[in-house]
Amino acid sequence: MSHLEQLQHWITEQHVDAAYISDPTDINYFTGFYSEPEERVLALFVFPDAAPFLFTPALSVEAVRKAGWTGDVYGYLDQEDPFALIAAHIKERSRTNHAWAIEKDVLPFGRYEAIQREFPDAVFPADASRFIEQLKLIKSPAEIALMEAAGREADECFRVGFDALRTGITEQGVVAEINYAMMKQGVMHMSFDTIVQAGVNAADPHGEPTAAQVAPNELVLFDLGTNHQGYMSDASRTVAYGEPTAKQKEIFDVCLEAQLTAMDAVKPGLTAAELDKIARDIITKAGYGEYFIHRLGHGIGTSTHEFPSIMAGNEMVLQPGMCFSIEPGIYIPGVAGVRIEDCVHVTETGGVPFTHTDKQLQVIPVRG
Amino acid sequence: MSHLEQLQHWITEQHVDAAYISDPTDINYFTGFYSEPEERVLALFVFPDAAPFLFTPALSVEAVRKAGWTGDVYGYLDQEDPFALIAAHIKERSRTNHAWAIEKDVLPFGRYEAIQREFPDAVFPADASRFIEQLKLIKSPAEIALMEAAGREADECFRVGFDALRTGITEQGVVAEINYAMMKQGVMHMSFDTIVQAGVNAADPHGEPTAAQVAPNELVLFDLGTNHQGYMSDASRTVAYGEPTAKQKEIFDVCLEAQLTAMDAVKPGLTAAELDKIARDIITKAGYGEYFIHRLGHGIGTSTHEFPSIMAGNEMVLQPGMCFSIEPGIYIPGVAGVRIEDCVHVTETGGVPFTHTDKQLQVIPVRG
Repeated sequence: MSHLEQLQHWITEQHVDAAYISDPTDINYFTGFYSEPEERVLALFVFPDAAPFLFTPALSVEAVRKAGWTGDVYGYLDQEDPFALIAAHIKERSRTNHAWAIEKDVLPFGRYEAIQREFPDAVFPADASRFIEQLKLIKSPAEIALMEAAGREADECFRVGFDALRTGITEQGVVAEINYAMMKQGVMHMSFDTIVQAGVNAADPHGEPTAAQVAPNELVLFDLGTNHQGYMSDASRTVAYGEPTAKQKEIFDVCLEAQLTAMDAVKPGLTAAELDKIARDIITKAGYGEYFIHRLGHGIGTSTHEFPSIMAGNEMVLQPGMCFSIEPGIYIPGVAGVRIEDCVHVTETGGVPFTHTDKQLQVIPVRG
Repeated sequence: MSHLEQLQHWITEQHVDAAYISDPTDINYFTGFYSEPEERVLALFVFPDAAPFLFTPALSVEAVRKAGWTGDVYGYLDQEDPFALIAAHIKERSRTNHAWAIEKDVLPFGRYEAIQREFPDAVFPADASRFIEQLKLIKSPAEIALMEAAGREADECFRVGFDALRTGITEQGVVAEINYAMMKQGVMHMSFDTIVQAGVNAADPHGEPTAAQVAPNELVLFDLGTNHQGYMSDASRTVAYGEPTAKQKEIFDVCLEAQLTAMDAVKPGLTAAELDKIARDIITKAGYGEYFIHRLGHGIGTSTHEFPSIMAGNEMVLQPGMCFSIEPGIYIPGVAGVRIEDCVHVTETGGVPFTHTDKQLQVIPVRG
């Protein structure tokens, strides 16, 4: 059953009359067409017993066809009222439009109100966000293959990035080399803004690459990934530029032990919370628990952050086909930051990583 | 009065008890802190008579301080319930939390429901999206200065891009050269994905750069911009790679006449619809009206698409300080696409462009 057929099946079960899908990633998942419409309206409408349709800005209609969507597509011009047109197309298909499914995680309140204006009796009992996150939770072999390709691209990014390290290059300069090399290979979209942080800057796990220059005897943290045909990679490595200090080596070793132990522990039947605890206990016992200030990992697939969240309190049981990151980090302000991350998919026998770049502490010789 | 004080003034006028601001660009506009929180919660809460606070993922608290926000900031951990914490902080400040202002353009329905769960009597009479778009509509001299800087960066992108053209380079390869050159200069964020389209590909105004190679006697369309400290540039140029054909030259000349005429026509008192019509009439009279399938322009500032929209039906009167694009385009499937665009700011005497790259048809000599 295609993703779209599974959605139709679900809305039939939910006894809703229409589903309004508006997240661009979800629209791509169901139709094969991706576009970021900005403030314009891009929407997929799905019905239990009528043909679905895509509603797009007029200037995207051609691209919808090129993407292979063979269903109906209706374009609208900037000066037209999109929701009046949408309502007319819906009423052609379906006489009862009482109960709706919407994506509660993404549908802006104002568009919910627009639907209510056109369909004053509308109620919104079904949350398509919850259904779609479950639908995306278990990846098919075809999806795993795309994520493996994205993982190989991330490995290539590390190769380029490690190669670019030299005394005086800025964090931003290293990012430039990575992104440039990938674009020249036709990889036009990173899965998120490439992170390169050197020395004490890496102690801020949400910082951006700066104009700070890489200097000898610093740790350098890379966190990056690519978008391969709509499927994401995400991986982190921390390397030493020149000989590491004893303290740098110590926190690296603790983080690596946590990462490797969690990787080994992945298996169907374990809960997300248990997996988080396995890594966290190692860091806590080594005395660095207070410096590991985020969850162990997040699900990944058509977006970089989806289900399952690998964190305390999440009793979700791991199953074959789930994909998520394992990324312990230790961030000591004024000292250094270390994060080591692979994304894995769960099989009957354990977790299989999408990235294969060496995780032992690589010492990049000082050069300049 | 600071942007934040203007917001506080507005919510007092609106008789609301609290405003929930969640758009990352808006949060930056009011606080100076920018972060894209993905699925995590980042929010600014503002009150008529109590101190505002920022609520962020724990791992962003340090970055909030670095950004210069001196008000309260509360972090939360992944395993905590953000809306329970938010409600507690609000109740510390304000005893009545009945009437709310929310950004209806962006607040997801599910987060509106989360607020309703914590404050069952809440009503949502005020749309902060509408207030903020008005607040952003007239740019201050300081904002204009940032947009001029972003415009100079866009001019630099054109220089690099035209320079990169050679027989056999791909559209994606030209994008790679532009983005690489900018990142090496520390410009880490383009305002949108750089567009380079050669030959017939440019006839799709929403297409993406492909692996198609640039060939002699094609038009090549560039549409790009940068993010300069939170303010955007956006400009388009179309150049000839090798000698253009008579047809290419004809549609270029029509598009240029429309663009230059509209640029000259900008003045306070004209409506957005009138400005659109001035350009559209030229293209229509030349017989290409059906190939100009989008509005003449869009507002620009902290985002690439904001008010005012320069299109039929928009009776908004142009005023000094407004900033928007003027970007007529002619897209003939199977033949070519031309778009020429500057963003301008309105002064008492006319429109002043942010970009200055020559708009006459540049013929790049065939090379490679």
